[in-house]
Amino acid sequence: MGCRALLLLPFLSLGAATTIRSRSETLSSLSLPTNPTPDPAVAYSYSVLYFEQKVDHFGFSDSRTFKQRYLKADKHWKRDGGSILFYTGNEGDIVWFCNNTGFMWDVAEDMKAMLIFAEHRYYGESLPFGEDTFKDSQHLNFLTSEQALADFAELIRHLKGTIPGAEGQPVIAIGGSYGGMLAAWFRMKYPHIVVGALAASAPIWQFEDLTPCGMFMKIVTEDFRKSGPHCSESIHGSWNAINRLSRTESGLNWLTETLHLCSPLTSGDIPNLKEWMAETWVNLAMVDYPYEANFLQPLPAWPIKVVCQYLENSNVSDTVLLQNIFQALNIYYNYSGQAKCLNISQTATSRLGSMGWSYQSCTEMVMPFCTNGVDDMFEPYLWDLEKFSNECFQQWGVKPQPHWITTLYGGKNISSHTNIIFSNGDLDPWSGGGVNKDISDTLVAVYIPQAAHHLDLRANTAFDPSAVLSSRLLEVKYMKTWIEDFYRNAKWQP
Amino acid sequence: MGCRALLLLPFLSLGAATTIRSRSETLSSLSLPTNPTPDPAVAYSYSVLYFEQKVDHFGFSDSRTFKQRYLKADKHWKRDGGSILFYTGNEGDIVWFCNNTGFMWDVAEDMKAMLIFAEHRYYGESLPFGEDTFKDSQHLNFLTSEQALADFAELIRHLKGTIPGAEGQPVIAIGGSYGGMLAAWFRMKYPHIVVGALAASAPIWQFEDLTPCGMFMKIVTEDFRKSGPHCSESIHGSWNAINRLSRTESGLNWLTETLHLCSPLTSGDIPNLKEWMAETWVNLAMVDYPYEANFLQPLPAWPIKVVCQYLENSNVSDTVLLQNIFQALNIYYNYSGQAKCLNISQTATSRLGSMGWSYQSCTEMVMPFCTNGVDDMFEPYLWDLEKFSNECFQQWGVKPQPHWITTLYGGKNISSHTNIIFSNGDLDPWSGGGVNKDISDTLVAVYIPQAAHHLDLRANTAFDPSAVLSSRLLEVKYMKTWIEDFYRNAKWQP
Repeated sequence: MGCRALLLLPFLSLGAATTIRSRSETLSSLSLPTNPTPDPAVAYSYSVLYFEQKVDHFGFSDSRTFKQRYLKADKHWKRDGGSILFYTGNEGDIVWFCNNTGFMWDVAEDMKAMLIFAEHRYYGESLPFGEDTFKDSQHLNFLTSEQALADFAELIRHLKGTIPGAEGQPVIAIGGSYGGMLAAWFRMKYPHIVVGALAASAPIWQFEDLTPCGMFMKIVTEDFRKSGPHCSESIHGSWNAINRLSRTESGLNWLTETLHLCSPLTSGDIPNLKEWMAETWVNLAMVDYPYEANFLQPLPAWPIKVVCQYLENSNVSDTVLLQNIFQALNIYYNYSGQAKCLNISQTATSRLGSMGWSYQSCTEMVMPFCTNGVDDMFEPYLWDLEKFSNECFQQWGVKPQPHWITTLYGGKNISSHTNIIFSNGDLDPWSGGGVNKDISDTLVAVYIPQAAHHLDLRANTAFDPSAVLSSRLLEVKYMKTWIEDFYRNAKWQP
Repeated sequence: MGCRALLLLPFLSLGAATTIRSRSETLSSLSLPTNPTPDPAVAYSYSVLYFEQKVDHFGFSDSRTFKQRYLKADKHWKRDGGSILFYTGNEGDIVWFCNNTGFMWDVAEDMKAMLIFAEHRYYGESLPFGEDTFKDSQHLNFLTSEQALADFAELIRHLKGTIPGAEGQPVIAIGGSYGGMLAAWFRMKYPHIVVGALAASAPIWQFEDLTPCGMFMKIVTEDFRKSGPHCSESIHGSWNAINRLSRTESGLNWLTETLHLCSPLTSGDIPNLKEWMAETWVNLAMVDYPYEANFLQPLPAWPIKVVCQYLENSNVSDTVLLQNIFQALNIYYNYSGQAKCLNISQTATSRLGSMGWSYQSCTEMVMPFCTNGVDDMFEPYLWDLEKFSNECFQQWGVKPQPHWITTLYGGKNISSHTNIIFSNGDLDPWSGGGVNKDISDTLVAVYIPQAAHHLDLRANTAFDPSAVLSSRLLEVKYMKTWIEDFYRNAKWQP
């Protein structure tokens, strides 16, 4: 059943996939690991701090608390006319986000900014119940975007109340991917706490029917189509080639050998094999960065172009096609040349919180995805909420509430808000669910050609396309406007 | 201990008082009972409906639901160019609010409006756990303003999804007192759901130190000062007169007899006696309406003026003073002439949810009040959060989080929001914690001379001062602007 493999693919977010796959901890996530630039000149320096948060901000009978980790860097902070850039942590270790959000470090001096990186509850070290955190739905009950935003609000209140000079300063929320959604939502729900938000690669419209469910995989496909002749056709043809070859024992053996797999394939593995391959193409689309880097895997610059060099001939026999596919996969999994074999239970190293995101995908963060094999290079797959819901219930004992996020945060009806930058790269499959056109003068879209998943939040490098560099400058310009407005208005207050 | 009596007074809201007084069900509340106009021409006609709500909107492990009651009146509603006026129910029976919010009924035809009155969870019939609703802090855990707003959001989504023609229409939130706070907060947190809010007599700044804690009782005092010569001085003098008289057994007997009390006073009752009297003055300040009506008690028009006729001589003996005080109290408790004696365990009939409000006052809705006996006519009383907190813990097993409301809703820093009318009457003690000056072009204050607690939400009568009538017209004008903007913007959307 080819469908089964594709069922999972669109759920880039770890969690949703986890509801179906047992190898949950190995899947990729909405948030990309954005490792340091090719040649990081300096290690970032910060303090690691902890703040006691209520486990439940929205009820009073539960008085338990936990320690939220956050990082603070104030080397360039000025008490006079300074600002606070606040990273709204997403589904992973905050140190990792901190080290991979070079943009904030690059602009700190210019903006006289204190940098704060706040870890999202249930990720990294900020586990409300220690080892029991993911035990059951009772313990997971406080893992919601609303609680996370309330954590941020309380933390900022604490910082302003305890750091002399911070109180009278403007705070800007910054985040990427799910963290970008949180940054935008934080500005929407707590505009009294942050003067604006930079929401990078934030697919706030990847819910319900706000975005066609096929958009995501269509963009993935487009990335491959543009990166080499017949590249997407080759991948499109590979699924049926696998289906045909896997019908016989000898075909399975041939596949195992040709793809250099670590374990012999059985016919039952075929859905997983296809899923793993599709995830690989999706991951490549997200990390199609202009420079060599070590992300999910060590990769060359513009990795899809490199991959597509092996996939220029689509009109070939099944065996030649899959030999080519292997060469392509080998770029992703063995660019370093160290891998002895390919393991279909792994697509990436995981610094992300797979358990937490799985739960979030099964509750609030329900993102419909589909493919049709016509507008995209994948096998057709229909979005089936009921099935998804049942799988979530089996996995976590909870049922998704797919309309809650749009009820809470407004869906497409957000024009009454102000001061949010939505940045998206045209290569990023998540851009399909993002805001790519200005909504108003102060709800602006920065659409970046040649950029993959929140490339703009990464440090400046000589390899960045000029559009990326100019987008970062534009973002800084907007943020400075918010800061100026803040100080101008502050002057007029008693 | 005179202090003890005054301790409770400022907590007009039932709940807070309940933490200290056992006779909880008899105290007045933040929300005034606003009964029909003197001569209601027609009974309002509406459907009573129920909508299934999640008990917990902010968690997924609890799948319990309850029936929220709401009322619908669509006689004047037009599918073409109409609107939906949505009453954000507060701490009481929604039928009672419905019948006493004549303003909405008066404007329905002109605004082609459907009227919806949504009951607040934990009040009226909308009890999440039936008889167990107020059993303990576990059951009360879902009684918060956030959950109530989420109920409203879900209900409106439901209405728009099920009533043909409703989907494309603008919704305006309307509420008075705590309901006014909810209306304002609803617009702030869910601007995609309501195009604006009329927040009548909503003391959104009666938290933390946003308003001086003595403001409330100062306004009560001012109402009496303006309503007759030496009126507030007489009341101011009455406390010590009571203290002196109550030192002896004969004095206590004299007081019992002179005040026509139902039960003989003991010295231990004196704090309660003074508290009851102070509450009476506070209630009078809230319901100082321009026409005869039956609210907390049947009362004449401008009841404080009538009361003050008995209190023109403050420079008299203790006994004469308290005889006069009795005459004043008798206006409030025996205007109908039916009362055989006065019961100091009652200040008003209660259609409000005393248990629920007590809990809310002990969690989110922490409003500091104080008196100093100089700027007001009461005995001095200091706000003591720690003491209050301990009493709350004893009563409900929860501790107040006094800063949460301002963290959540912004305190005085709300200028980024739009389309909220804050109306307040100068006679209303709650106006002290309200918004009485425009914050921006679209966050406007309507300050109404000669108006007590949300008089503007009551039906038009011939007795209303012209300022009240013109304020209602102004409110309608603002609301129509929001509706026009909504339809104009809708036209430009695809």
